[in-house]
Amino acid sequence: MKFASYLKDGQPTFGVVVGDGLVTLGNKLPHVPTLRAAIETGALAQLGEAAVDARPDIALAEAVFLPVIPNPSKTLCVGANYRDHAAEAGKTEKPWPGYFIRVDDTIVGHGQPLEAPVVSEAFDFEGELALVMGRPARHIAESEALAYVAGYTCFMDGSVRDYQKRCISAGKNFQASGASGPFLVTADEIPDPAQLTLTTYLNGDQVQHSSIAMMIHSVPKTIAYLSTIIQLRPGDVIATGTPAGVGHGREPPLWMRRGDRITVEISGVGRLSNPVA
Amino acid sequence: MKFASYLKDGQPTFGVVVGDGLVTLGNKLPHVPTLRAAIETGALAQLGEAAVDARPDIALAEAVFLPVIPNPSKTLCVGANYRDHAAEAGKTEKPWPGYFIRVDDTIVGHGQPLEAPVVSEAFDFEGELALVMGRPARHIAESEALAYVAGYTCFMDGSVRDYQKRCISAGKNFQASGASGPFLVTADEIPDPAQLTLTTYLNGDQVQHSSIAMMIHSVPKTIAYLSTIIQLRPGDVIATGTPAGVGHGREPPLWMRRGDRITVEISGVGRLSNPVA
Repeated sequence: MKFASYLKDGQPTFGVVVGDGLVTLGNKLPHVPTLRAAIETGALAQLGEAAVDARPDIALAEAVFLPVIPNPSKTLCVGANYRDHAAEAGKTEKPWPGYFIRVDDTIVGHGQPLEAPVVSEAFDFEGELALVMGRPARHIAESEALAYVAGYTCFMDGSVRDYQKRCISAGKNFQASGASGPFLVTADEIPDPAQLTLTTYLNGDQVQHSSIAMMIHSVPKTIAYLSTIIQLRPGDVIATGTPAGVGHGREPPLWMRRGDRITVEISGVGRLSNPVA
Repeated sequence: MKFASYLKDGQPTFGVVVGDGLVTLGNKLPHVPTLRAAIETGALAQLGEAAVDARPDIALAEAVFLPVIPNPSKTLCVGANYRDHAAEAGKTEKPWPGYFIRVDDTIVGHGQPLEAPVVSEAFDFEGELALVMGRPARHIAESEALAYVAGYTCFMDGSVRDYQKRCISAGKNFQASGASGPFLVTADEIPDPAQLTLTTYLNGDQVQHSSIAMMIHSVPKTIAYLSTIIQLRPGDVIATGTPAGVGHGREPPLWMRRGDRITVEISGVGRLSNPVA
């Protein structure tokens, strides 16, 4: 099943994809107003299944999408996690996943405008697979980690490269510089995320293309490692890094500018597309 | 005035310090259940003033404190912001504040146990002044930045040094490795944070002592800089870095261990003290 977070009558809610529309679920159960809450309370599958024959109340083409989880307890992003990208970024391969944190204000939903920074032109794209945690995880083993995943989504880890040289948190945390969505595709539809393929398009031109299997640190390894550091919670978003092809690795560099459109497509997961405003 | 977040009957709430107790305010106004909400809605001063003659319903000595803002939209932490600490950490001085992000799960309230990491012994203390934002701030000038501050608190930026070498986000984001509180002291009581003095004690022994004026990047400069990157929101917590004396800078290193107690005291702001469990 595919779930999404979006606005209805100006208020945040969530729903399930049925045909070419969304059946709103945020009003079905008390205390389950958000996709995060539905994952936390374990009601997600039940809510989705009860809606399979319902009539959509919003067309997908008209939905105002929010980030797939608008209010996670945290968004952790693995860096330099594909050999070809690590090479173009001048990073050496390490035995553990390196990561940074993005705050909620940096992420917009599918279709919503990204904000080109006022103070920099070096606004770069990074297409990524992200996972959403389904159960609390602390000190879990790599072999059991996939069982803790609620589902997957597309992620655009927009990066401001000159500020990133100052410090990674700055470069990765510009207002409305990234995106997630459109959908949470539940993990039962994706038994092995390594089988997926990611492609990024800038204004329709392919700029990144890779098998997810080319990751240095796999999805289960990353989850297990992060769980030794911190309590992972239902709804937590973990972005898994980007393959080669980013604008920073090109000569001359290829930056996103106002009027551009950046699209991240992952087989079986969806197509996240955002204008730059 | 001094405000605090704490548990009452097992539920998160907030209140104002009156004498040696707390007058609970989280039940006074609909839609203002938290200290963050009180700052957001501008009701903080009004709520506090209405309570000055009220009888405390919880003694300070019996309160179960939460982080001063348990649910900020973000916690941004400046690193290497005192010359003497930057030197002991081998960092060079930069023209802008470098920072990292801590997620909520890493912070506990005053008096609550810090969690010694299972996977590392290199658990270090960093006493810091933190500020809490009072108004939304984006692209604001340094000269006006202090007017956006709701107040100040003590912060213990507990750091796991071997993981910090792997990546800063890991070393600064171990579960329950840091603390904030006990109080939000409103900005009207602290016209110039540079006048304050910070002292950190490990098991009662002084390990850090510095004037806040020794900061490289001042509080107003830091706020103005961060506001060029991201929307700062009411309740956002900004920790301003630590002076020299951390355990990592000593020979041999001085780490926190189970059974220790770490205390951060700032003149006019308070005394944050936590056991290591």
